[in-house]
Amino acid sequence: MSSSQQRRGRHRADGTKRAEILAAATERFGRDGYETTKWAAIAADVGVGPTALYHYFESKQHCLFVILDDAVQMALARFEGIAATHEDPVQALHKVVADAFDVTSHDVQRLRVLVAEHGLLAVRRSSPREEEARHVARARTRALELAWAHLLEQAMEPGAIPDAEPRMLARAVLGLYNSVWQWYRPHGAIELDAVSDFYRTRMLELIGLPADLDEARAA
Amino acid sequence: MSSSQQRRGRHRADGTKRAEILAAATERFGRDGYETTKWAAIAADVGVGPTALYHYFESKQHCLFVILDDAVQMALARFEGIAATHEDPVQALHKVVADAFDVTSHDVQRLRVLVAEHGLLAVRRSSPREEEARHVARARTRALELAWAHLLEQAMEPGAIPDAEPRMLARAVLGLYNSVWQWYRPHGAIELDAVSDFYRTRMLELIGLPADLDEARAA
Repeated sequence: MSSSQQRRGRHRADGTKRAEILAAATERFGRDGYETTKWAAIAADVGVGPTALYHYFESKQHCLFVILDDAVQMALARFEGIAATHEDPVQALHKVVADAFDVTSHDVQRLRVLVAEHGLLAVRRSSPREEEARHVARARTRALELAWAHLLEQAMEPGAIPDAEPRMLARAVLGLYNSVWQWYRPHGAIELDAVSDFYRTRMLELIGLPADLDEARAA
Repeated sequence: MSSSQQRRGRHRADGTKRAEILAAATERFGRDGYETTKWAAIAADVGVGPTALYHYFESKQHCLFVILDDAVQMALARFEGIAATHEDPVQALHKVVADAFDVTSHDVQRLRVLVAEHGLLAVRRSSPREEEARHVARARTRALELAWAHLLEQAMEPGAIPDAEPRMLARAVLGLYNSVWQWYRPHGAIELDAVSDFYRTRMLELIGLPADLDEARAA
């Protein structure tokens, strides 16, 4: 094996271990809460020593910021993918709202962590590495809000939805959406399908769209 | 002064100091974040030593739970007062939604703390005193949700608002409302009046009521 092959191999192993740590931390934070979770417990979950963990993340907080950023990054990538492939902003809005509920159990845990701990994104850190991760996650949260505001504005221009302050409407729609993950539990009393139907309709109403896309097209 | 007068005087002074600590902590938590705030800084704000602070609260976390409970208790008392004095559930719903935005700057700070830190209510504490305060605040949060669900159900029965799962609708309305305090800042770019108008209308729409009470009565 050449030394560059070795490096690539090590990079790949590093990336896998990093992903394992993020997944384990997400499950712990989502289930037991961020504050309660011990850094050492995450290390044990993935079979590395607590010291080895510091090779990947400077601290539990650093790891949290990366998890929050991953959650928003996934949401933003999906949003932008849909917005880019639908010329009609009304169709795009219907799609992004439906897509937001197409989530795995692991996604739900990550959304729970995001909703429970997003407040920490507002708090400056003294460690440069933590502070950088916080900035990245915070900027991404703003980017998602702006992407929503932009799409809403595109639907307002031809009068497809009622005029409103786009940024405030984006925040309201995201606020309603995020609130689901405060209480929804996979395998809980209410099925995700029922939650999704209920909230999808209400998010569209908030935007000013009928829940039925054909009805929306006819109007 | 008799010894019972002395005791009463001390009780009063204790109550005042406790209220001062809660007010100072709310401002600090709301402005700088709960995690960042030092217990000693709160002590300095109210002019007591950190040790004296422990006479009132076992820990910063204990103090936080009391603040969260106070926030929900105030909301619940106002909600119940309105519900009790309005026979018509539609009128009561209009009133409670409007009343929810009749808040002082200090109320806003408290709501910010509630929204940012409510996740901690889900996390069991090992200290009995903290755990008790957590239980009280958590039960009160449930009581507010149930009070909303009950009023919504009362409006559903005569068909004044569309049928829905009352608890889920209550959570959606509260979720939309609470999201305001994640981003709204007193003296920020958007006036409270504009925020209130926007969200009041959307909360009523979510419930299935027109924003105008006369229109609602006619329907």
